[in-house]
Amino acid sequence: MAIPDEEFIRGNVPMTKQEIRILTLAKAQVKPGDVVIDIGAGTGSLSIEAAMIARQVFAVERNNEAIELIEQNAEKFGVDNIIIINAEAPNGLEGISKIDTAIIGGSGGNLTKILDTIDRRLKSGGRIVINCITIQTLSETLEYFKNHDNYKYEAIQVQINRLNQVGQYDMAKALNPIYIITAINER
Amino acid sequence: MAIPDEEFIRGNVPMTKQEIRILTLAKAQVKPGDVVIDIGAGTGSLSIEAAMIARQVFAVERNNEAIELIEQNAEKFGVDNIIIINAEAPNGLEGISKIDTAIIGGSGGNLTKILDTIDRRLKSGGRIVINCITIQTLSETLEYFKNHDNYKYEAIQVQINRLNQVGQYDMAKALNPIYIITAINER
Amino acid sequence: MAIPDEEFIRGNVPMTKQEIRILTLAKAQVKPGDVVIDIGAGTGSLSIEAAMIARQVFAVERNNEAIELIEQNAEKFGVDNIIIINAEAPNGLEGISKIDTAIIGGSGGNLTKILDTIDRRLKSGGRIVINCITIQTLSETLEYFKNHDNYKYEAIQVQINRLNQVGQYDMAKALNPIYIITAINER
Amino acid sequence: MAIPDEEFIRGNVPMTKQEIRILTLAKAQVKPGDVVIDIGAGTGSLSIEAAMIARQVFAVERNNEAIELIEQNAEKFGVDNIIIINAEAPNGLEGISKIDTAIIGGSGGNLTKILDTIDRRLKSGGRIVINCITIQTLSETLEYFKNHDNYKYEAIQVQINRLNQVGQYDMAKALNPIYIITAINER
Repeated sequence: MAIPDEEFIRGNVPMTKQEIRILTLAKAQVKPGDVVIDIGAGTGSLSIEAAMIARQVFAVERNNEAIELIEQNAEKFGVDNIIIINAEAPNGLEGISKIDTAIIGGSGGNLTKILDTIDRRLKSGGRIVINCITIQTLSETLEYFKNHDNYKYEAIQVQINRLNQVGQYDMAKALNPIYIITAINER
Repeated sequence: MAIPDEEFIRGNVPMTKQEIRILTLAKAQVKPGDVVIDIGAGTGSLSIEAAMIARQVFAVERNNEAIELIEQNAEKFGVDNIIIINAEAPNGLEGISKIDTAIIGGSGGNLTKILDTIDRRLKSGGRIVINCITIQTLSETLEYFKNHDNYKYEAIQVQINRLNQVGQYDMAKALNPIYIITAINER
Repeated sequence: MAIPDEEFIRGNVPMTKQEIRILTLAKAQVKPGDVVIDIGAGTGSLSIEAAMIARQVFAVERNNEAIELIEQNAEKFGVDNIIIINAEAPNGLEGISKIDTAIIGGSGGNLTKILDTIDRRLKSGGRIVINCITIQTLSETLEYFKNHDNYKYEAIQVQINRLNQVGQYDMAKALNPIYIITAINER
Repeated sequence: MAIPDEEFIRGNVPMTKQEIRILTLAKAQVKPGDVVIDIGAGTGSLSIEAAMIARQVFAVERNNEAIELIEQNAEKFGVDNIIIINAEAPNGLEGISKIDTAIIGGSGGNLTKILDTIDRRLKSGGRIVINCITIQTLSETLEYFKNHDNYKYEAIQVQINRLNQVGQYDMAKALNPIYIITAINER
């Protein structure tokens, strides 16, 4: 856990920053034996850190450049329990049953459909953790969990500033803020 | 007040962002009739907004590219009460007495000397407002005012996120945070 | 402008904090001669600072305790161009035509109706500035302006931390973040 | 990891919030077999989460009420590898050699002495993680690591807003920001 950003092979695909990965995975409470799905896996950074703990990770990603990065990163970090699903979610999720944890880093405009599909496959006590960078995704997420009372949720906004060392000075450089919503299936 | 950032001529000189200008000038309480000094004037954005209210603004700046921008911006906004002092502060401040407000946007490593020089010229009830982007400048500023008990000060950190409109989405883009310290001379 | 928070008479009514007032009023671009409406006026802090610049301010407020505070604060600050409308907006706005600026600090669940009512009364080039403390109000605001293309809008999130002076230390105390949306009527 | 705040027994002792604990422990990279010291242990929340991973945790705390809470929490969470040292650090650290990780949540004005004491006991590759809530402690920390070039450090500021569920609304409640500095001993 807490792999530094620069250790991942990145290309031009946006990557969840280290502190957000740390908080997302901690909120997700991934445990040994778990089945995890990572939707909008991007560079695979979250998938790889989850795969170091869980039994099986399904990384769902529609972008071909990103899929290559996931493969390269999985190899680099010696992780062999990630199955990459080249699809636009919720497509590609049909075959997966009994999900312990779903992490959603990107939803491509299909969030509600994705949540419905996960909902039918999520174990009792299972968790959904969603990273939102737009107000619309945040709003849709909150509305979903307000309307599905089998979920208890919490939501936080995280803003990280990194202090860059410039000569004798430490100068704050802001990372973009992100909302992390964690829902537990109590059904 | 509240001139949008893109209306200033900028070049490669860093510019105080609109929201920070607004808060800095409001904390500075610039009034008609005032004499204002703006140290580390950069593009002149703070000088120009101050000059729209005050009687006289002295813009102190050591960088030649910046000085040209101040001149161009002063002309663009039709402001003729800014005197540009091409010097590295505290140099260039000797001739100015009876300062109502000092704004410090950049101190080039000379902060304590600059504050000492201002202190001898600041009217009773006058204000010093300092924008700090490094922890070291912030720390030096706080220490100065703790050790000079003719000043009462307050300090805030300001973090602004702008929502960029990307298609149907609004996506947060962080500006770097800044500390604003406001000291009032009660001597 | 920039009246310190503690100078307002407050009671138990929540008050917009100084830095948020400063930014709201700057974004609102209130000018001499303007007609301003302040919806959800609360303690009247925004109304009073607007009234120091504008020709006429209408403060709309449904809560009786708040209305007394507006009256007391108006008297304290010697402001006599505020008309208090004791109503739940959009009620009470019928008689006001030709609004230059509308400030919305609280909408009591009626935001879209309030915006529709303002829209029919807002001058060309007039501004609406909305302070949102909930995701739902923010989301409704953004959706409104996306669907009404006579408006150009910008939105920011503002987070202020105040450094409290505790002995020799300066300790950050967070204020709750707020979104400020500014829309200009270009019709 | 990621124990919710409300599960700890708290009393009136300030407690590091969940998200800060998560980030602090991830930055600390605590591993099985490690010896960890937690200075200014407070309620023991960091000690307990560290003890679930490490071989041995020494919790240093000068406050008697806090010490009782550490004992109660250790019992509640079934953790038996915490040794509580009732002392004002750096006192109490003399007997501990070969530290893998030092976490400093509170330094009671003795930060430099504490860091010197840890420095003599920290293994090569060992980590120091410091949580700072005042500018003075932050500044002293940065200066220490700038002046001791056996350390490579990084520093972040973390600001968390929690969305409180109030009826149909989600309303942001700010937690106070905190700086987390992580230094690695490369000697």
